[in-house]
Amino acid sequence: MNLDEGLRGRRSIRRYAERDVSDALLREVLDLARHAPSSMDDQPCCFVAIRAGDSKRRIAAAKNAHSPPDKRAFPADFVSDAPVVVAVCVERARAHGRVRENGVLATAFLLLAAHARGLSGVYLSAYESENDTLAPQIAALLGLPDGIQPVTLVPLGFPAEEPGAKRLRPLDEIVHAEAYGGPR
Amino acid sequence: MNLDEGLRGRRSIRRYAERDVSDALLREVLDLARHAPSSMDDQPCCFVAIRAGDSKRRIAAAKNAHSPPDKRAFPADFVSDAPVVVAVCVERARAHGRVRENGVLATAFLLLAAHARGLSGVYLSAYESENDTLAPQIAALLGLPDGIQPVTLVPLGFPAEEPGAKRLRPLDEIVHAEAYGGPR
Repeated sequence: MNLDEGLRGRRSIRRYAERDVSDALLREVLDLARHAPSSMDDQPCCFVAIRAGDSKRRIAAAKNAHSPPDKRAFPADFVSDAPVVVAVCVERARAHGRVRENGVLATAFLLLAAHARGLSGVYLSAYESENDTLAPQIAALLGLPDGIQPVTLVPLGFPAEEPGAKRLRPLDEIVHAEAYGGPR
Repeated sequence: MNLDEGLRGRRSIRRYAERDVSDALLREVLDLARHAPSSMDDQPCCFVAIRAGDSKRRIAAAKNAHSPPDKRAFPADFVSDAPVVVAVCVERARAHGRVRENGVLATAFLLLAAHARGLSGVYLSAYESENDTLAPQIAALLGLPDGIQPVTLVPLGFPAEEPGAKRLRPLDEIVHAEAYGGPR
């Protein structure tokens, strides 16, 4: 797949076909995700791939229980229907104070690598913005040692929905020259 | 450029050729960066493109003044040599509590879109992990209104260095099945 097309065509998908995602295919995706830039190139990310139905249901339940008011209309039940859920986790000692940033970068690469293989998913945070009790619960579920934090949860599968056209904000509204509000 | 090759080939570059980056080329990059996933698809990112030498020197000086001890060996002086520096900023009211995450995702897309055009850059944070005084300084420099936060600063140019081979952590060290330490 062409890179520009990949950046344009990737969409968030929450319905997955009943079609297996092989270990080999998932490995290709994770192999590419590890090429994401990282702080001081210390590569603090690791990936936990979850296929067990019980684990996926617990993740969905944890996400639902910690959903902020503005996101309650979008329950995470679909997570348990994905063939695999990848938890992107970050080792604090290698992250140079940028745990979440490193995890987010790897997740962007992961989503694009998946898209190039016909897989789709959606970015889900593994923590809450404030008074976070979600991350400890996910960490326990994944058996993460102290010092490794979950950052994102990405359900992956072959898509079973066709998203509508994406409406992007006009470029002239979001690009500024030299300073905010400057000529475009 | 092929997507897989793009993910593998993108590298952090801090030396730039004396070759202009046209507005048209930069616009292509920003056009693709806005396709990054965002919280509730609310697209909170905007981009300030800085070419003025004085502004670039101030950004470099601000980054140097706020550099944490483990990064002091890597001064940001090179920022002023880049033909253009893109500040990725995020509007808090559209970010659903995920200001930085949205900015980081757009930055990943921006770096890849640049790479597909032969441009290189490097991811720099526009804030400090703790007791942040860098972001307000960058915000003032960019004339950002209240409610818009700078997240990253990406110098971009045609590369004038050839990075050494990247040494990646082995996949078996960073991939876990079902739980951390589980079978790989």
